Amino acid sequence: MDAKISRELDWLEAAIDEFAETSIRGGEYWRASYTDEDRAAVEMLTGWYTERGFKAYTDEVGNLYGRLEGKESGVILTGSHRDTVKHDGKYGGALGLLSAVAAVTGLNQELGQPVKTVEIVATVEEEGSRFISSYTGSRAIAGKLKPEHLEEEDAQGITLKQAMEDAGYYKGSLPEPRKDIERFVELSAEQGSVMEKSLKKVGLVQSIVGLEVGSITIHGEQNHAGTTPMSMRKDPVPYAAEIIASLTKWANSRNDRVVVTFGNIQVQPGKPNIIADSVTITFDIRSTNESLLSEARSILQEFRNSAGPGFSVDYKIAAYDAPADMDLDGILAMRDIAAEHNMKYMRIDSGAGHDAQIVADCFPTNMIFVPSEKGIAHSPLEYTSREDLEEGYILLREYLRTLAWGK
Amino acid sequence: MDAKISRELDWLEAAIDEFAETSIRGGEYWRASYTDEDRAAVEMLTGWYTERGFKAYTDEVGNLYGRLEGKESGVILTGSHRDTVKHDGKYGGALGLLSAVAAVTGLNQELGQPVKTVEIVATVEEEGSRFISSYTGSRAIAGKLKPEHLEEEDAQGITLKQAMEDAGYYKGSLPEPRKDIERFVELSAEQGSVMEKSLKKVGLVQSIVGLEVGSITIHGEQNHAGTTPMSMRKDPVPYAAEIIASLTKWANSRNDRVVVTFGNIQVQPGKPNIIADSVTITFDIRSTNESLLSEARSILQEFRNSAGPGFSVDYKIAAYDAPADMDLDGILAMRDIAAEHNMKYMRIDSGAGHDAQIVADCFPTNMIFVPSEKGIAHSPLEYTSREDLEEGYILLREYLRTLAWGK
Repeated sequence: MDAKISRELDWLEAAIDEFAETSIRGGEYWRASYTDEDRAAVEMLTGWYTERGFKAYTDEVGNLYGRLEGKESGVILTGSHRDTVKHDGKYGGALGLLSAVAAVTGLNQELGQPVKTVEIVATVEEEGSRFISSYTGSRAIAGKLKPEHLEEEDAQGITLKQAMEDAGYYKGSLPEPRKDIERFVELSAEQGSVMEKSLKKVGLVQSIVGLEVGSITIHGEQNHAGTTPMSMRKDPVPYAAEIIASLTKWANSRNDRVVVTFGNIQVQPGKPNIIADSVTITFDIRSTNESLLSEARSILQEFRNSAGPGFSVDYKIAAYDAPADMDLDGILAMRDIAAEHNMKYMRIDSGAGHDAQIVADCFPTNMIFVPSEKGIAHSPLEYTSREDLEEGYILLREYLRTLAWGK
Repeated sequence: MDAKISRELDWLEAAIDEFAETSIRGGEYWRASYTDEDRAAVEMLTGWYTERGFKAYTDEVGNLYGRLEGKESGVILTGSHRDTVKHDGKYGGALGLLSAVAAVTGLNQELGQPVKTVEIVATVEEEGSRFISSYTGSRAIAGKLKPEHLEEEDAQGITLKQAMEDAGYYKGSLPEPRKDIERFVELSAEQGSVMEKSLKKVGLVQSIVGLEVGSITIHGEQNHAGTTPMSMRKDPVPYAAEIIASLTKWANSRNDRVVVTFGNIQVQPGKPNIIADSVTITFDIRSTNESLLSEARSILQEFRNSAGPGFSVDYKIAAYDAPADMDLDGILAMRDIAAEHNMKYMRIDSGAGHDAQIVADCFPTNMIFVPSEKGIAHSPLEYTSREDLEEGYILLREYLRTLAWGK
């Protein structure tokens, strides 16, 4: 390998560890947005930007940019988010963010001033690290964050607006949507094991799944398990079981184009010898295909509508994100680079959400995946080896070269 | 109505309240076995027995008897249990026990010394009020309680043996099985709403359900809800749903001859966006038909055996009680009395367990049910009105008359 790439990867590996240190308390990595931990991360990044000659600045919601001015108008955006969930691992957003810092630094040293301006963004509150709704930074960039969204409260009752004000970002108005961005590319670990199992090192993301998450509560009639004949029961548990079994069967028949997960079930009162009064099941449905999400919703609603007498069904949607297609020209360009470098690449869909899906309808957007060891994400055990990172890093660097330096 | 029956019912109503008072602490009725509350109940019953000329005595496990000597050998046994679960209602065992006191007292006053000896038993620890395994008193009567059963510990780690010793009952050996009992008859509230819904006042119990209760834990593979395609999942939740749906469907097709309840479900880790590592479901299967219990067990075991690779299924049986048929001669005799008195009677199976099922294979045993308002049992709201009790009480009294006084 090229010695300069190797040095960039040395820096990147060390930087991931150094960056994590800003937000490890009692052995636990958690960088909630607008906190002291977040402030420390912003300071470290600002230092790195500045010493490389990138202009560091923040917007009114707290996105942190490092800007390397080009000769012509138009901005190529790269980077990732800087927040982490509680008890997270070191890779998360840091991998894409610091890969961007390393690559842009290396390209700048190698090729001088770019044709297009390059900005590296460290978005804020992508993970829902502090507030339930996520993608705050990218929604601001896309012009999708509205004043009413700022009223959301964190677990302590502090509003998003207050948190942004206290951190010194928000001063009464939201940032203008970015109209100057020509393209966005983000590198990330897969957060799954499709690539590892396929023995591939680079994933060209085709689409990011949309998701619908929520819960269904079925109310029946509490009664005695022994003395209530089957014909006199309104037992919500078998009804819930029918919903789970049916929707799973449907998803299994769709050739991995949709996933359905029922991750929690709560039975009330939950005694072995009492027919339940109610059952609540959570659902998490994801697909890159909007019509499959809509089909799943219809199946659930049909269960609600067809509940017999004595049953009632509450159906709550907690979040809906539309699926997003990555830019086809970008995929083709990256495919050519990957082929030229004999990379072990594959096309892949993202089952996890990313800022990229928020901005994809504003400007052409692409993602590069590298493998996650054992598919682990959002855990201290999360790991992407240098060997697994190399090809994805080179692809990001080469793609940025063609986009911003035009050579 | 006969004035003396009316007086007996007056006493019975008052006695139920007075008896409950012995064990109400802070508004909550709980008479755990071998406690001060139990001691107070034994003293009150002993007083009632003695003042009526019944010989009061206890056996080595703490069953309390009141014996009215007859002219010939052989014992007619009646009564019920004296313990209650925590937060129980006033009727439970007290209704059958004090109905027996009232009826035997009335018959003795009306007809003098019986032909057969009559004993009223207040059994101990039927409910599992203190120890998990139940029917301790009736198991001792039937010779089914073994020395090793005395090693069971309560929530404080006190063994059954120690508790019996501390209460002054156990002195090193278990009671001999009762061979002198010719017949047992127990009155109880239904603890369900089949009679209320059928507008009947007297239930002639045909069989007491057997039950199999336990839990099934399905282990799958924890994973990310978004990034794990359906074909790569080992999700235990849909597997559990299939078990619940299948066994319920099977039970529904058996014309109310079996009931199946899944009263609790625990999902680990129980997060909406994580495919579960494991699910535990409790099952409670009851039937008067042993072959249906065995069929249900086969269905569950088939699910265990057919779990695919990546799944493992643990199947734990917490308790098994065989179903018990009540004595047919007794049912016929009571049917004739009920018909003669123009009672609104029906034949019914008991979906709840009773001491009667433990002793039914030792001597002819029968049960009489009276309605439970709204089917409520084991709750402070448990209630059987005087109007609902009358016919059942008269049936018990008339049946005891024919059995013990022979007229």
